[in-house]
Amino acid sequence: MTHFSWTAVATDGAARAGLLHTAHGPVETPVFMPVGTAGTVKAMTADAVRSTGAGIVLGNTYHLMLRPGAETVAGLGGLHRFMDWPGLILTDSGGFQVMSLGKLRTLDAEGVTFRSHLDGTQYRLTPERSIEIQHLLDSTITMALDECTKFPATHEEAESSMELSMRWAARCRTAFQPREGYALFGIVQGSVFSDLRERSSAALTKIGFDGYAVGGLAVGEGQSAMFETLEASVPFLPAVKPRYLMGVGTPDDLLGAVARGIDMFDCVMPTRAGRTGRAFTSLGVLNMRNARHATDAAPIDPGCACPACTKHSRAYLHHLFRCDEMLGPILLTWHNLTYYQSLMRGIRTAILEGGLAAYAADVRAAWGNHDKPNPGLVP
Amino acid sequence: MTHFSWTAVATDGAARAGLLHTAHGPVETPVFMPVGTAGTVKAMTADAVRSTGAGIVLGNTYHLMLRPGAETVAGLGGLHRFMDWPGLILTDSGGFQVMSLGKLRTLDAEGVTFRSHLDGTQYRLTPERSIEIQHLLDSTITMALDECTKFPATHEEAESSMELSMRWAARCRTAFQPREGYALFGIVQGSVFSDLRERSSAALTKIGFDGYAVGGLAVGEGQSAMFETLEASVPFLPAVKPRYLMGVGTPDDLLGAVARGIDMFDCVMPTRAGRTGRAFTSLGVLNMRNARHATDAAPIDPGCACPACTKHSRAYLHHLFRCDEMLGPILLTWHNLTYYQSLMRGIRTAILEGGLAAYAADVRAAWGNHDKPNPGLVP
Repeated sequence: MTHFSWTAVATDGAARAGLLHTAHGPVETPVFMPVGTAGTVKAMTADAVRSTGAGIVLGNTYHLMLRPGAETVAGLGGLHRFMDWPGLILTDSGGFQVMSLGKLRTLDAEGVTFRSHLDGTQYRLTPERSIEIQHLLDSTITMALDECTKFPATHEEAESSMELSMRWAARCRTAFQPREGYALFGIVQGSVFSDLRERSSAALTKIGFDGYAVGGLAVGEGQSAMFETLEASVPFLPAVKPRYLMGVGTPDDLLGAVARGIDMFDCVMPTRAGRTGRAFTSLGVLNMRNARHATDAAPIDPGCACPACTKHSRAYLHHLFRCDEMLGPILLTWHNLTYYQSLMRGIRTAILEGGLAAYAADVRAAWGNHDKPNPGLVP
Repeated sequence: MTHFSWTAVATDGAARAGLLHTAHGPVETPVFMPVGTAGTVKAMTADAVRSTGAGIVLGNTYHLMLRPGAETVAGLGGLHRFMDWPGLILTDSGGFQVMSLGKLRTLDAEGVTFRSHLDGTQYRLTPERSIEIQHLLDSTITMALDECTKFPATHEEAESSMELSMRWAARCRTAFQPREGYALFGIVQGSVFSDLRERSSAALTKIGFDGYAVGGLAVGEGQSAMFETLEASVPFLPAVKPRYLMGVGTPDDLLGAVARGIDMFDCVMPTRAGRTGRAFTSLGVLNMRNARHATDAAPIDPGCACPACTKHSRAYLHHLFRCDEMLGPILLTWHNLTYYQSLMRGIRTAILEGGLAAYAADVRAAWGNHDKPNPGLVP
């Protein structure tokens, strides 16, 4: 059996290249985790996800507890077998989606009661139940249940929300059943307030987790506030544990967050953009629906090894999106995930060579539009 | 260069096993052609289509002339390169879709004028233009433009419609530019009237084509009328040429039509059914949306080698369709095309062994519901 651990291979400033050891295999960090909300990375077979180089995917506890239900997944042998993903799976706690339900949910000190957005059925999510669900799913990395603090929030609101999350984090730690190669991560909260982030980081460290996530970001605070928050959190987390920035982000966000000590990321951006016709490329973002691609025989990204780029023209992708053919989202999701994985490999190699800053500058320059706020995203 | 030809390998009653030789490779017959309407077999990459064993796909001239346009496809190197399909491509003439436009089209002796169902743009399709478009697409097998006779039709209507199609067939023969390994097929019409089918078959044979299709069927006439029509057509077509039953059909239709001398088929059934949750299996048709699959760990079809069957449970497929996840249509289309290809291989092997009747009986018995009108289709 493999003990869950993260080992550093190289550092470059605050950036780290490392290796996660888990019950479901190793994975190199920094790592980007494609989002497989309901037991499927949208528009992709598991083989296709693997072919992009991904070694870990994220599953959403909220969606899976509603459909097909955690007990059903367990009865079918767990999420790995269900979705044909023997590699690593990280599941979120369900908290983020439940908190987003607005009037459909009621928060109390013990947990949250909510109605399904699908059929109104009432559910109860507590720290203990969230941990149990993730155990039933057989998640490699379980996330503690937290309250994702609304944004913007006053210092007082953010403080009481963070303190609730810290109490729940301790309950999650108690509820989690240790298994060789499995992990439980805590989540730093505190909105954009540095003092709260520092306190939250210290509180989690005191409880002791196998890894630490920075949560409550990518909710509208902007990239500079996000980076400042990382700088107020990361230094207060144990250097020997992996760090995960939840729900982030654009390619530019990834470059900046790795430079600030983050090892793990998840985001719907590459998959969602792929379904709507936007391609992340080494030269910037292309909107494949744009008429200028209609007769363009060039590939989306000449340097890319994905099937969309090696087998097809921009004109073909344009055609597929114009005709609402499913193959458009399939190929473009495939491409975008390949781009993200390739970017992460590039970042890791740069760290190993001690040249992350130069690599990031080169990547940003190639996008050709780094005067825009989110060069990796805006077409 | 390969001369286009069809060679018989074995016969079993009227059924034939053969080999098509073309500019884009050989293909074994009897053969089922997945439908790739707009330059893509819906929900499938070209690699996925190939993995089912398919060697030839069908493209729709009507859809491709509207989007992206035949000249655009030609400018991009032809349909093979456009859709990553170096194998055989058969294109229909556009006639069937245009005739279905109702008030949007006007038929005259020279051709048909119609408005696009997409944006109302006016187009003109003549025998010469249909042949030109298919040439621009670089279709391996070009179909003559015909009038697909409405159903039901009186004998008089069917006769004048068939005679128009025969005049157009002669014009297509003249317009078609012979190229090594490329083919032009004529299309038998005459509705359900045996005398008209016989006359049409003879008229086409006199013009001389590289293959012969039976058209105007699968339009509501029922299986027995369809089989009677085949018996009134096939004997009057040259035995040395391939025969193609257009737009057919259920697995049971394929068994019956091969036994009546048909070599080639196309149908949207496996792909369309796959997108709506219906699975063709060796044990009959399953509707994956049915709640009884919700916790079923068994594969869709235990004997099937497709990714849906080798990697996933019925419960997973059920879950995907319940959640409207794109992977449901992807996997089930993959499965259904695999089933159709596997059925055609079984049929061919049975012909080679002189046991088609016994094979067909075994296949039908395994469906377990052969008292229904279309055992291969109805769940």
